[in-house]
Amino acid sequence: MKIFIAQQNYHIGNFEANTAKIISAIREAKKQGGELIVFSELAVCGYPPRDFLEFNDFIEQSQAAIDKIKAEADTIGVLVGAPSRNPKPEGKDLFNSAYLLYEQEVKGIAHKTLLPNYDIFDEYRYFEPAYEWNVMEFKGIRMAVTICEDIWDMSPNPLYRIQPMDKLMEQMPNVMINLSASPFDYVHADGRISIVKQNAAKYNLPVIYCNTVGSQTEIIFDGGSLAMNRNQDLIVEMPYFEEALVAVNLRVDGSFDELPVRHAAQVPLAQLMPDELDDNLGIANIHRAIITSIRDYFSKMGFTKAIVASSGGIDSAVVLALACEALGPQNVRALLMPSQYSSTHSVSDAERLSKNLGSPYDIIAIEDIFKTFESSLDPVFKGLPFNVAEENLQSRIRGALVMALANKFNCILLNTSNKSELATGYGTLYGDMAGGLGVLGDLYKMQVYALARYINRTVEIIPLNIINKAPSAELRPGQKDSDSLPDYYTLDPILYQYIERRRGPKEIIAMGYDAALVARVLKMVNTNEYKRNQFCPIIRVSPKAFGIGRRVPIVGKYLS
Amino acid sequence: MKIFIAQQNYHIGNFEANTAKIISAIREAKKQGGELIVFSELAVCGYPPRDFLEFNDFIEQSQAAIDKIKAEADTIGVLVGAPSRNPKPEGKDLFNSAYLLYEQEVKGIAHKTLLPNYDIFDEYRYFEPAYEWNVMEFKGIRMAVTICEDIWDMSPNPLYRIQPMDKLMEQMPNVMINLSASPFDYVHADGRISIVKQNAAKYNLPVIYCNTVGSQTEIIFDGGSLAMNRNQDLIVEMPYFEEALVAVNLRVDGSFDELPVRHAAQVPLAQLMPDELDDNLGIANIHRAIITSIRDYFSKMGFTKAIVASSGGIDSAVVLALACEALGPQNVRALLMPSQYSSTHSVSDAERLSKNLGSPYDIIAIEDIFKTFESSLDPVFKGLPFNVAEENLQSRIRGALVMALANKFNCILLNTSNKSELATGYGTLYGDMAGGLGVLGDLYKMQVYALARYINRTVEIIPLNIINKAPSAELRPGQKDSDSLPDYYTLDPILYQYIERRRGPKEIIAMGYDAALVARVLKMVNTNEYKRNQFCPIIRVSPKAFGIGRRVPIVGKYLS
Repeated sequence: MKIFIAQQNYHIGNFEANTAKIISAIREAKKQGGELIVFSELAVCGYPPRDFLEFNDFIEQSQAAIDKIKAEADTIGVLVGAPSRNPKPEGKDLFNSAYLLYEQEVKGIAHKTLLPNYDIFDEYRYFEPAYEWNVMEFKGIRMAVTICEDIWDMSPNPLYRIQPMDKLMEQMPNVMINLSASPFDYVHADGRISIVKQNAAKYNLPVIYCNTVGSQTEIIFDGGSLAMNRNQDLIVEMPYFEEALVAVNLRVDGSFDELPVRHAAQVPLAQLMPDELDDNLGIANIHRAIITSIRDYFSKMGFTKAIVASSGGIDSAVVLALACEALGPQNVRALLMPSQYSSTHSVSDAERLSKNLGSPYDIIAIEDIFKTFESSLDPVFKGLPFNVAEENLQSRIRGALVMALANKFNCILLNTSNKSELATGYGTLYGDMAGGLGVLGDLYKMQVYALARYINRTVEIIPLNIINKAPSAELRPGQKDSDSLPDYYTLDPILYQYIERRRGPKEIIAMGYDAALVARVLKMVNTNEYKRNQFCPIIRVSPKAFGIGRRVPIVGKYLS
Repeated sequence: MKIFIAQQNYHIGNFEANTAKIISAIREAKKQGGELIVFSELAVCGYPPRDFLEFNDFIEQSQAAIDKIKAEADTIGVLVGAPSRNPKPEGKDLFNSAYLLYEQEVKGIAHKTLLPNYDIFDEYRYFEPAYEWNVMEFKGIRMAVTICEDIWDMSPNPLYRIQPMDKLMEQMPNVMINLSASPFDYVHADGRISIVKQNAAKYNLPVIYCNTVGSQTEIIFDGGSLAMNRNQDLIVEMPYFEEALVAVNLRVDGSFDELPVRHAAQVPLAQLMPDELDDNLGIANIHRAIITSIRDYFSKMGFTKAIVASSGGIDSAVVLALACEALGPQNVRALLMPSQYSSTHSVSDAERLSKNLGSPYDIIAIEDIFKTFESSLDPVFKGLPFNVAEENLQSRIRGALVMALANKFNCILLNTSNKSELATGYGTLYGDMAGGLGVLGDLYKMQVYALARYINRTVEIIPLNIINKAPSAELRPGQKDSDSLPDYYTLDPILYQYIERRRGPKEIIAMGYDAALVARVLKMVNTNEYKRNQFCPIIRVSPKAFGIGRRVPIVGKYLS
C-alpha cells in the first residue's frame, strides 16, 4: 500500500488556508497513486489552538473543515488530526482525535490517550483522554493509530498509568501510525528517533510517524517525519524545518519496499550544555530553528519588516544577522542610539555590522532627550544622586525611539535580551526588554557567542571586535556586565542547572559551586519573575524556555 | 468533638512564615480545647505554587514543614494540605494531599481526585489524581476528607468521569471535610454555598469547608469557610477577605451543637452583567477584593509605596482612590503629565482628586520632552505625517517619566488600563500599558463607572467632572475614545459575550447585535493578543480575566 506522509506548516485557526493545504496534498497523492495519506495532529486547526478550543464556533469550523476534506477522500484514505466532540456527558467535551476518511465517509476515529500537560503543553485543559482503543482496518491493514505523546511514555518512571499501545496490541495491528505535533528543542530530535525505535522494538511493528513543521509564536515544529521498519531501520527520514510530501510502500507483511536510509541530511544534535559551548554541535540546528521561527512569526502576523536596536554589542549583532537571513537585509533596519556613556567603538562596530549585512540603519543620539528628561524631572528629583532610575531612563528612551520607528515604518521590533539577562533580571522593562519577539531569550550568553561564531563560519559578518569586547550596557561611565553579574562562564552553568535541570541550591552546591554565589543567583532568578512576566514570546530552542512553559508565582518567596 | 476551622493567608513558598502561622493556630485551638483543626489546601506551601512543585527542594521543604507541624499535633488532630510523593513509579510523582496528623504521627493521608485544569488552574500539570479512597477515622468519627474541586463536579454534564465522594460513601462516613483554595470572582461565593448545600443534600452528611484567604499575584481567595449540617443549614459562615479561626462542635450523630446562622455579613453577590451595571450588587465585593489584592501584592512583594499616572480620567481616578484605601494616602503618589493636547480640566480634576484623597502629587508636562523627541526623530521621519507613532510616543514618554519616579522613590507603578481597553488593544505598550499590577484590567469600562460611584457612595472622593466627562486618551487634538471604539454601552456587552461566555460571532449576532460591529470587535480582540501577552498581572474579579487564565495563540488567525 502506497502511503504518503504529509509534513505541513499550518496557521492556527486559519481553517481556509489549512484546509486548502491539506486538500492540495491529497490531490497530489492521488495523482501519484497514493492509497493512504497521513497528516499531523490537529492539522485542520493548527497546533496548539489553546483556548480557541473553548469556542463552539471553533469546533464547528474544525468539523466543517473535516467535511470538506472528507469530500476529497474518495479513492484515497486520509488520516488527519482534528478535535472531536465527546458524545458522553461525563468527562471533558472534546477529544484530540485522528479521523480516518475514505469513500467520502468517516470510517474511523481514534482519540489521544496520553495528554501532555507539562512545560508548554496544556492538553488536559481541553481534552478527555481516550478510554477505549480500536485498531482501524483499511484495505486489509490493521492500523494502530496513536497521537504524539501516546508513544512517548517509555521510561521506567512513566508519567501515565496506562499505555495505549499495550491496549491496541490486543487487536493485533500490522503497523503503528502516529500523528504528531512534536516541537523542536536542541535535544528533542534525537529523542524522537530513539522513541520511535523503542516502539518498533517493543511492539515488533513498523512505524509511520508524521510530524508538523513550522513555528507557532514561540514553539517551533521541526518536522523530521519518518518511517521505520520493525527491525528499527529508518526507511524514510523527512527533512527538518521544511514542508515535504513523501511516499512509502507498506507490504501486507508489515515490511517496506524501500531500503533503510542513512541518517538524513541533518547536522547531528547534541545536548548543549553551557560548558560544551565551544562545540558547534547543535548550534547549526538552533540557527535554523531561529531562522524558521522569525520567518514564520512575521508571515503569520502579516508583517514583512523588522527593526533592531543595534548597540554594537553581541546580542543585537546576532539578532540583526539572523533577521537579515530570515527576512532579507532590505527588510531589516537597525537603529543606533548612542548615549554620552557609549564608547566610540559601539557606533563604529554597529555601522560596520549593518554594512556587512547590507541592511539600512539610522543613528539617533539620545543625549538631548535624556537631558530634557533630566531637567523635567529635576523639580521632583531635587538633586538626588544618579542611580538605577537614570540608567533605566536611558534604556526607556531607546525603547521609545525604536518603537516610534517601528510604528512609523510598520516594523516589528525584535528583542535582543538573552537568557542569562532574562534569568537575572539584568534588563529594563519597557527599555531593552521591549519588542514583539524574543530572538535570543532562550540562549544563555555563552550560547549567543557560539551562535555568533557560527554566523561567522565562512565570512566575518559580525565584526570580531563585537565578539571580543567585554559585554556592557553602557548606561553609566565605564559600566561592565561583570559589575552586576557573575562572569558568564560561572553564571550560565548555575542558571542551566536551576532552570533546565530544576536542581535546587543543595544539589548545585554539591556540584562544586560556591554556596553564596548559588544563593545570590537563584535569588536573582526568583525575584525577577515580575519582569519576565511582561516579556514578549521567546523563540523556544531549549527544553525549558522562559514563557508559557515555565510558570512561577510572582509574589512567591522561595529561595529569595 | 470541637473542630477548629483555620482560614489563613499564606505566602507561596514562604515555608517559615506559613509554618509559624499554622502552628500558632494549632496552639490557640489547643488552648481553647480543640480536638481537631482543619487548614486549607496546600497550606504549607501556599496555593498555587505552580512550577515550584517541579523542584525536589521545594517538596523537601514542604515535607520538613509537615514534620514541624506534626510535632505540634500531639493532643490535637490536624488536617492540613501539602504536596506528597506518589510512591508508585506509574503516574506523576506528586499528589495534592491532606495530611491527618495526631499523636505526633501521620495518621492518614487523602489525595485529591479531581484536578482542575481550566482557566487559572493547572493542577494536572503537577499531580496524579487519587485512585484509592479511604475514610479517615478520628476519635470515632469517620471523616470523608476531600480537596476543593473534589466536591464541585455536580452538573449534569460533569467534567470528570469519577466522583470521589461516591467512592467514599461506600465506607459510611459521618462527616465531609473539604480543604480548599477556592478563588473569588463576582459569581463564585454564591456558587460555593450552593455547591456545599448540594453535597450535604446528596450525601446526607454535615460538611466542614475550609478555604484559604488573601491574594496571590492576580488570584484572590476570599475565605468564606463554613460548616453546614445535613439539613443544609449554614451553621458557621466565616468572614470574607480576612483571616479567622472559628470552632464548631460536631456530635457523634453528625449534627452540630450550634444553631443555624443567618447569612453572614457579606453584601449579596450577583452576576455582574454589563447591562446590570446600575445595580450596586456585587460592586461592594469587587471593591473589597481589589483592596485585598493591592494590599497583599505590596506586602508579599515587600513594597509599601505605589505611584499612579493620574490623567484626570476615570480609570486613573479609581485606581488612585483604591490604592489610597489599600496602602494609605501617604504611600500613594500621583504623577500628572499633561501634554499640549490635554484639556485644562485634566490637570485641575486630577489635582482636585489628589487633594480629596490627601495624597501627594507632582506635575511634569511632557511637551518639552516630546518636542526633543520630535526633533531627534525628524532626520529619520523626514516630515511624514503625525500618526499613531507620535500618539504612542507621548504615551511612552509618560511611561518613562512615571517609571523614573517609581525607580527613584521605590514605588510600584499601578496600571490603570480597563478590560474594555485591553480587550480591544486600545492602549500603548510601554506607555499606559506599563505597570506592575493591573488594578482595573478585569473590569469593563461600565464596571469602572459603577466602582467610581461606589467609591463616592458617601462623599465625593472622585470629582464628579471626572465621572461625567467623555473618555479620551488626549493624544491628539480633540481625541475621544469613541473615535476609535464603539460606544462602551455597546462594546462592553459584546466583549462580555465573547470573553466571559465564549460565544462566537453567530451566537452574538443572534442576540441582536450588528454583524459588522461584532466582526470588528472580535477581530480587535484577537489581533491584540500580542499586546495583552506583555501586560502585567491583572487582579482577577471575573470568571474569565485576561492573563494566566486565558491562553490564546498570538500568531493565530481566527475571527481576525
